[in-house]
Amino acid sequence: MKQYLNLYKEELLNNVIPFWEKNSPDKVNGGYFTCLDQFGKVYDTDKFVWLQARQVWMFAMLYDQVKPNTEWLDLAKNGADFLIKHGRDKNGAFYFSLDQKGNPLVQPYNIFSDCFAAMAFAALNKVAPCEEYAEIALKTFENILERKDNPKGIYNKTFPGTRNLKSFALPMILSNLTLEMESLLDEDKVKSLVPGVIHEVMEVFLQEETGLILENVNVDGSFSDSYEGRLTSPGHAIEAMWFMLDLSQKYKDEDLCKKAIATGLRTLEYGWDKEYGGIYYFLDISGHPSEKLEWNQKLWWVHLETLVFLSKAYAITGNNECLQWFNKVHDYTWKHFKDPDSPEWFGYLDRYGKVQLPLKGGKWKGCFHVPRGLYQVWKNLEKIK
Amino acid sequence: MKQYLNLYKEELLNNVIPFWEKNSPDKVNGGYFTCLDQFGKVYDTDKFVWLQARQVWMFAMLYDQVKPNTEWLDLAKNGADFLIKHGRDKNGAFYFSLDQKGNPLVQPYNIFSDCFAAMAFAALNKVAPCEEYAEIALKTFENILERKDNPKGIYNKTFPGTRNLKSFALPMILSNLTLEMESLLDEDKVKSLVPGVIHEVMEVFLQEETGLILENVNVDGSFSDSYEGRLTSPGHAIEAMWFMLDLSQKYKDEDLCKKAIATGLRTLEYGWDKEYGGIYYFLDISGHPSEKLEWNQKLWWVHLETLVFLSKAYAITGNNECLQWFNKVHDYTWKHFKDPDSPEWFGYLDRYGKVQLPLKGGKWKGCFHVPRGLYQVWKNLEKIK
Repeated sequence: MKQYLNLYKEELLNNVIPFWEKNSPDKVNGGYFTCLDQFGKVYDTDKFVWLQARQVWMFAMLYDQVKPNTEWLDLAKNGADFLIKHGRDKNGAFYFSLDQKGNPLVQPYNIFSDCFAAMAFAALNKVAPCEEYAEIALKTFENILERKDNPKGIYNKTFPGTRNLKSFALPMILSNLTLEMESLLDEDKVKSLVPGVIHEVMEVFLQEETGLILENVNVDGSFSDSYEGRLTSPGHAIEAMWFMLDLSQKYKDEDLCKKAIATGLRTLEYGWDKEYGGIYYFLDISGHPSEKLEWNQKLWWVHLETLVFLSKAYAITGNNECLQWFNKVHDYTWKHFKDPDSPEWFGYLDRYGKVQLPLKGGKWKGCFHVPRGLYQVWKNLEKIK
Repeated sequence: MKQYLNLYKEELLNNVIPFWEKNSPDKVNGGYFTCLDQFGKVYDTDKFVWLQARQVWMFAMLYDQVKPNTEWLDLAKNGADFLIKHGRDKNGAFYFSLDQKGNPLVQPYNIFSDCFAAMAFAALNKVAPCEEYAEIALKTFENILERKDNPKGIYNKTFPGTRNLKSFALPMILSNLTLEMESLLDEDKVKSLVPGVIHEVMEVFLQEETGLILENVNVDGSFSDSYEGRLTSPGHAIEAMWFMLDLSQKYKDEDLCKKAIATGLRTLEYGWDKEYGGIYYFLDISGHPSEKLEWNQKLWWVHLETLVFLSKAYAITGNNECLQWFNKVHDYTWKHFKDPDSPEWFGYLDRYGKVQLPLKGGKWKGCFHVPRGLYQVWKNLEKIK
């Protein structure tokens, strides 16, 4: 596996990051364009807060972890300033999207804008400490914790009482966000949050019967035999497993480490398309037709997060199954997602591995999973002896 | 074209309708199961109000138009009774979905449950006149007209003022619903509504520059260069064109008839996949990557509504282009959507025409587009001399 170290590092630093540095800054209004075609040309100017915040995080993290390149820091600050000026409603909740100038377009109907904003301001505060950044990060984190039992708030369309589900996305993100926020939180706060989050991920959403993770369960943790309750997203589960591995290393929790690796591998076995290769986007755990029309598509982030999981698990344990799977997923990913004609990677393939949408960035794909994945794999490979 | 008359008629009466009669009634709780696998087995018991209402409409319409089969009437009443008992919130708005027993699951966050319910109760009232049916149909129709400027109500996630769009779906549905409701409405009411609806469809959403119909425009009718504003759905536009043809016949409006045929054919030319055949689900009018991951899939309703449009246009005008296109779309549709192994048709194909989801009914596919399409084509073919 280690032979790939330079491949991941160079792809990150010489291909992907320069693509975003060059094409995404909005020099007039601040913030970033993320709707970029195959060659980096802007085809839509809306600003999606998830992606604005994730890009702030990415450049702050690179400045912190790779090298103190002031251009990276300036780029991160450019996005943060735009979010400070335009990102929040009067309650401090981050909108879902803004127009090019920063006028709000879509209300804070879900909590993930807040999650990525908290992550962004915490990371930026680490490299450019500033009261405002720290305050926003902390206040937003508090908002998330307050909203976590009804994250959609007034935009929740579910009739109360009939079928109260909770979603895997929240504990899954919190398991990563809590560590990301560590520099700003009391140690006691972190210690009080982490075990609950691990419990939710590894004991509530992880179904004992199948060993797989469900996207939604009843509030009491039981299985809901409904479209939402039967939904699984292998990439989502595997991404959570590398968050669990990080926690297992920090807290020297070997059981958690073992369980996370077993769960990740089981999910990969389950989610792998035996006929055409690649990992499915969604599957119905009972084998019924999925509600999602895109269920059999192959998405970039699913594959990158899987490579992070496998390289991390291998670096920790030397597990041979992780090595075999890494090689298989690596081959598929580089063959199908990397664009030989232009920087950055494709995001959306059909079941057969053919490019479905020739974009490099859009409403959901920004400067995040490709560079974070490449960075993570690079760093994991460095740890292999 | 006329040689296909019996094919459509028999497929409707001997294949598709018996499938729903046999598999969908919930004899315990009332209403219909619509989540049916390839062989008609129920795989999910939730009840989606769009589909409940559409099935009521279908059986009432067949009883009215095909033959007074009391089993059909009873089946329609079974669905209507379930909706009367469980379908509405305290303001009389129809929920989006209910569980098997009728407990509400998802709030009335969009207006289309109301649209299909009004259509259902109006049709049922025609064949089984009853004050309650008539009242519900009328009251619901009034609700729709009241809600039409903000159809999502409190569930609207758009920030007011930045980019106020209106959606094609509403005038499009109203153009059909107004005729469906005719037996219950004053003639003056119909006459006051119809011109406005035709204007919206044919002059506001139909873009002069391209001759194509947009799914969303600014409230002042101008083009919005955004994901929503660039969105087109060829099947949706073509379906609306047969609604326009019906109106053109009723009001003896030859210009409308000509414009509807030209628009439908232009849309079909635009939406046809020249490489693999079939009609795309969504396209971006500027040729940018679609926001919709399912953009290049081939959906049953798109193809059936196109066959209705083409056969209707041909029956009215004898237009040769309609004949040519009918043959082409007919061949594609029967080859790919009809299931040779079990009744009813597949709904979801990938770009290449391969079945993507082996269901016969689900959250969005019920007893509606296949039987209505078969019925409509049959009746259009009867009119050809």
